[in-house]
Amino acid sequence: MNAEVAGQKDCLLGRTIVRRIDRLAAISADPECLERIFLSPEHRAAADQLLGWMREAGMNARLDAIGNVCGRYEGDRPGLPCLMLGSHYDTVRDAGRWDGPLGLITAISCVDDLHRRKLRLPFAVEVTGFADEEGVRFASTLLGSRAVAGTFDEGAFAAKDEAGLSMHDALIQFGLDPRHIGAAARVGRDLHGYVELHIEQGPVLEKENLPVGVVTAISGATRLAVALTGMAGHAGTVPMALRRDALAGAAECIGAIEEICRTARGGLVGTVGYIDAVPGATNVIPGQASFSIDMRAPTDMARKQAVSDVVRRIEAIAGQRQLTLQIDVTHENRTVPCAPWLRDQISAAIEGEGYRVFELPSGAGHDGMAMIDIADVGMIFVRCRGGISHHPDEHVDLVDADAGARVLLRLIESFRPRDR
Amino acid sequence: MNAEVAGQKDCLLGRTIVRRIDRLAAISADPECLERIFLSPEHRAAADQLLGWMREAGMNARLDAIGNVCGRYEGDRPGLPCLMLGSHYDTVRDAGRWDGPLGLITAISCVDDLHRRKLRLPFAVEVTGFADEEGVRFASTLLGSRAVAGTFDEGAFAAKDEAGLSMHDALIQFGLDPRHIGAAARVGRDLHGYVELHIEQGPVLEKENLPVGVVTAISGATRLAVALTGMAGHAGTVPMALRRDALAGAAECIGAIEEICRTARGGLVGTVGYIDAVPGATNVIPGQASFSIDMRAPTDMARKQAVSDVVRRIEAIAGQRQLTLQIDVTHENRTVPCAPWLRDQISAAIEGEGYRVFELPSGAGHDGMAMIDIADVGMIFVRCRGGISHHPDEHVDLVDADAGARVLLRLIESFRPRDR
Repeated sequence: MNAEVAGQKDCLLGRTIVRRIDRLAAISADPECLERIFLSPEHRAAADQLLGWMREAGMNARLDAIGNVCGRYEGDRPGLPCLMLGSHYDTVRDAGRWDGPLGLITAISCVDDLHRRKLRLPFAVEVTGFADEEGVRFASTLLGSRAVAGTFDEGAFAAKDEAGLSMHDALIQFGLDPRHIGAAARVGRDLHGYVELHIEQGPVLEKENLPVGVVTAISGATRLAVALTGMAGHAGTVPMALRRDALAGAAECIGAIEEICRTARGGLVGTVGYIDAVPGATNVIPGQASFSIDMRAPTDMARKQAVSDVVRRIEAIAGQRQLTLQIDVTHENRTVPCAPWLRDQISAAIEGEGYRVFELPSGAGHDGMAMIDIADVGMIFVRCRGGISHHPDEHVDLVDADAGARVLLRLIESFRPRDR
Repeated sequence: MNAEVAGQKDCLLGRTIVRRIDRLAAISADPECLERIFLSPEHRAAADQLLGWMREAGMNARLDAIGNVCGRYEGDRPGLPCLMLGSHYDTVRDAGRWDGPLGLITAISCVDDLHRRKLRLPFAVEVTGFADEEGVRFASTLLGSRAVAGTFDEGAFAAKDEAGLSMHDALIQFGLDPRHIGAAARVGRDLHGYVELHIEQGPVLEKENLPVGVVTAISGATRLAVALTGMAGHAGTVPMALRRDALAGAAECIGAIEEICRTARGGLVGTVGYIDAVPGATNVIPGQASFSIDMRAPTDMARKQAVSDVVRRIEAIAGQRQLTLQIDVTHENRTVPCAPWLRDQISAAIEGEGYRVFELPSGAGHDGMAMIDIADVGMIFVRCRGGISHHPDEHVDLVDADAGARVLLRLIESFRPRDR
């Protein structure tokens, strides 16, 4: 703890949260690095720990039909609709400890604070820890929140993990009954909304020098696979003017994608993460080149416009270079806008804690992408060091964890359900 | 044979050449595709065939200390310096049948024509079939012509093939004595010059609608390995302005290389044949990108200037994008200029056969790169279909094989040694 921190606040909430983050991070399949995947023994151990903290916080707590942990803190009378808070507690392989657990543990710690103060609100507060958001084991994401939203696809039961075990059988081994998966589903009228606190997983808040931010939307994404075919040839014998170099064409496409995204406004991003040139020899002009495109924007309209611009530019480049072009859409996710009334209340809580209100889109996916089907969604981002995530170096400062918790607690205490 | 061909010429030389090309192509390690590598049983069988044709053509013929076939057709008195003709008879794997053998068989067939006419010239004519130009077996090229030029590096004896057999032991198994390799070396005063006929292995003569061309130089080549390091990141969460995308940087470099080579004059070519982005996932901004560059030009000055321009542009791109840059020169070959006096005599022979004289550089390497150390070098290119080489589709039309042979025969008959 540095002097600034010591002088600023006691960070009581933050300290509890960091201690619990560290405790949860010790529950890992690999003692050398963090790995906690869906329906594993570590999933069970982490669930037990979380249920214990929920009960300490005065919540009625249970495991649901897909392995989510569900805690409920009643309002000033039993059975009221709830403000649902939550995040996930599964991890990627060789993960950081903050992605998911920060939001879940912060929510539990906030309820704990209400409970210590014996504060009951005119609505219930529920905390859900989703059992699978990352999708590591069965290559299918958001399994926990889809079950809660009632959109779980039972076709996924047949999916197998690397060891060949189906999700169906893994659920049974875990002690759950796949036939009862529907019991995890909630209905919209029981929820005033779903609010998730999560690390940003990007560098924007750090650059803005802010501990927290208001999420405007979870950006939709379109992924494309592009293949260009020209003519292979000897690197020495084919003059530049007679070449149909597929990699040179791909390079021009990458430049065009970058230019389109750089000149756009409002959070459009485009990434070429994968590329291959065939035959791939130093002294052969590539006859084929293939690459991936990942385009994201905070509105579907902006994303679709950008994808269309990119495709048009690639078609033009291929045409000019006499390259054969194939473009396939390999993945498409709609944008999930955060509800303006929840954004307003989150902004007020941030302002109430003395921070500048800063809005940003979420480029990464979150459980809100499933929860939108039964509830309005709001999100609070907490700064993470260097924007690094999905890596052991993922880190949140104690003061930032505390700031996020104070904002969430203020939001809960001042929460006004939307008029229905 | 099409009507035009039938009407044009009898193509007697061409027919002999094509028949022999087909005969030699039948000598292959693999009955399904052509493969004839250094010191293999096929090398031996092909050498025997070639030596037979040389003797039929009135030549004194022998295998030299490295496995080259060497034929000598005496001039109007014994022991005169020679005009040396030649090419190689090893192949790449899954090769075409023309690359190498066309020049060698054409030379033998031209001498055969002199012999039938009992024509003796005021100089000897030698034909050398080099045993290894492609370098497939021991990853070291021009072994045959280096032995003749006296520049064979005996360190290469230790090189091993895929089966672990050293070149030293392979020579012994073949029946040669590595200790006598120096006996293959020739001295410059015995040679008036070295002239090689070869397929173009590029599309320029086809585009010019010409069967033959005069080579100005065997272009030197510089190969570079470039590695750019930026910062990996989530494809959704890092705004465009905060990225240090190594692949986007590499793409800009590829564009710059293409632009520098396209706007240059005089046969400069630059190729990026290999590229890799790390980690190579659709949803991750590449933190590292590496690629190869192959630059060739018909003069060393032009190539060095272009390499320097390319390196400067890459340094600027890396600097602007805050990417760490590493560039290594992995390979460098000097330019081998063809001797002006030989170019003049080749041009006169082409004109004499009624074709337009067209000059072009050789972007590919040839045995002349070694022979330059003991002789002035000249080269005649013959059109090959689509510029395709090192591939079973490699093809030379009968009429073009015939045109090449007539040009070579005219060159021999009208050859005037350079005044010494």
